[in-house]
Amino acid sequence: MASDALQQVIAGMRSGSGPDFGGDLEQARQDFDTLLATLPVEGEFAFDAMNFGGVPALHCQTGPAHAGALIYLHGGAFVSGSAQGYRGLAANIGKAAGLVTYALDYRLAPEHPFPAAIDDVLVAYRVLLNSGMKPDRIAIAGDSAGGGLSLASLVKIRDEGLPLPAAGYLLSPWADMTCSAETMASKAAVDPALDQAGLKVAAGLYLSGTAADNPLASPIYADLSGLPPLLVQVGSAEILLGDSLAIAAGAGAAGTHVQLEVWPEMVHVWQAFAFMLDEGQSSINAAGRFLRARLGGDR
Amino acid sequence: MASDALQQVIAGMRSGSGPDFGGDLEQARQDFDTLLATLPVEGEFAFDAMNFGGVPALHCQTGPAHAGALIYLHGGAFVSGSAQGYRGLAANIGKAAGLVTYALDYRLAPEHPFPAAIDDVLVAYRVLLNSGMKPDRIAIAGDSAGGGLSLASLVKIRDEGLPLPAAGYLLSPWADMTCSAETMASKAAVDPALDQAGLKVAAGLYLSGTAADNPLASPIYADLSGLPPLLVQVGSAEILLGDSLAIAAGAGAAGTHVQLEVWPEMVHVWQAFAFMLDEGQSSINAAGRFLRARLGGDR
Repeated sequence: MASDALQQVIAGMRSGSGPDFGGDLEQARQDFDTLLATLPVEGEFAFDAMNFGGVPALHCQTGPAHAGALIYLHGGAFVSGSAQGYRGLAANIGKAAGLVTYALDYRLAPEHPFPAAIDDVLVAYRVLLNSGMKPDRIAIAGDSAGGGLSLASLVKIRDEGLPLPAAGYLLSPWADMTCSAETMASKAAVDPALDQAGLKVAAGLYLSGTAADNPLASPIYADLSGLPPLLVQVGSAEILLGDSLAIAAGAGAAGTHVQLEVWPEMVHVWQAFAFMLDEGQSSINAAGRFLRARLGGDR
Repeated sequence: MASDALQQVIAGMRSGSGPDFGGDLEQARQDFDTLLATLPVEGEFAFDAMNFGGVPALHCQTGPAHAGALIYLHGGAFVSGSAQGYRGLAANIGKAAGLVTYALDYRLAPEHPFPAAIDDVLVAYRVLLNSGMKPDRIAIAGDSAGGGLSLASLVKIRDEGLPLPAAGYLLSPWADMTCSAETMASKAAVDPALDQAGLKVAAGLYLSGTAADNPLASPIYADLSGLPPLLVQVGSAEILLGDSLAIAAGAGAAGTHVQLEVWPEMVHVWQAFAFMLDEGQSSINAAGRFLRARLGGDR
């Protein structure tokens, strides 16, 4: 069933010495960065280092300045990954949405555990607002840990009484630090990227003593009412499928507009392989249409 | 929060003497038909009575003959409703998708209990195929009981080894005759259209002794693998929200492409009020885009 391209992606995930967060963390981070560095970035994008009130970011002019901003939050289980490693995916999404891309380097655990990452997103968001950017011209997106972080940040923005951004886009979000979804077991055999034990180690480093069901650490336990429209994309071959189902159930029941897309056979954050995988670019294009419809205006 | 138009729809649902399937059934059917007759039908549509191998239907030329066909299955809890009553909604969807609309009058319970309705859909589908219509030019859609019936029919088409249609579109589907979703209670106060007790009466008439968790009577319990892409739209103010969540979870985990949209504040089959409710037409337009993308070709 799986296309040649998908088989290649899966084989790469299975053979790659994926990061082992239970071992030497610096080594795991290097392994992950090395893996990310193998992903080609389309040549047309130029990236500039900048910062939002001290929070480092990569900027890419993927849309006209007046169109609006995409805040992108990378994956890496809250303990690894970087804007640099995910710059190609972030810019691909920004371009599809017609927005300027800002990929944040939020602080990582264990040096900076929960809620440091959320605090950094809020700082960046406030700086954008203070710069005159209209909230209805801002979208927040992220993959994996960055997807859960996107959702937690939206909850925090609501709780702080700040004006809400126009939309959220969550790619294979990790939004439950208890790692207790039924799909942790039912999808274990078909998920080439993640396993429950590894996630639990990373969750422990991120939580650093905070309860795993804290609603900002694990936003599937948060009140998800009053949030902007959410697009959630997840593959059917993911142990994290359950996190996306829980987000759709919780946000939907709470009266937040949510669009959940489950993509057959797809694996964790398959959109990062858009350069070789048709479904990757199709998913990003669908997200681009979703975001353009919510952000409106001339772009 | 609710717009004036939505408040009008809700007030109409609450004040209307909704069908009481526990009382006199003929009276309930008449009440429901009277209710449906109050929905204006856009003047541009012309409807012709026809039949598929004995299964009556209303035909409407909402798209060019070569484009393809939309089989529409009306709501009414399997015991009431008609193609005539739902012709406006069916044609609105057919037009948005650019397909010729065929609204079926499948047989109703209790005179014709499960699986008569499914048998009728299969007869119509076979006649369409035998007429030379390509399966990848056919979509099946339905609301409420017709949404569950659409899903059950897709399962049956797969089980019979027939070629699959290109897509399914389920509006506020009722797909669980056990009526045991958690939202039966949690959304009872805000759902102006349906209540669990009424659904259970209708389920009993439809089942006529069949187990309520029979996978074709209640397709949330079916193997949902190998089905065409599904779009599921449900409102956040529906006791049937849980049925849609279960379909998304089951189909998604089984590797069927599923797009679930939960629309805030919307009530049971709000798309039927597209003539007065912006969200109704927006939802149908979104479904039109989904169906056009799956059916492809020149239309």
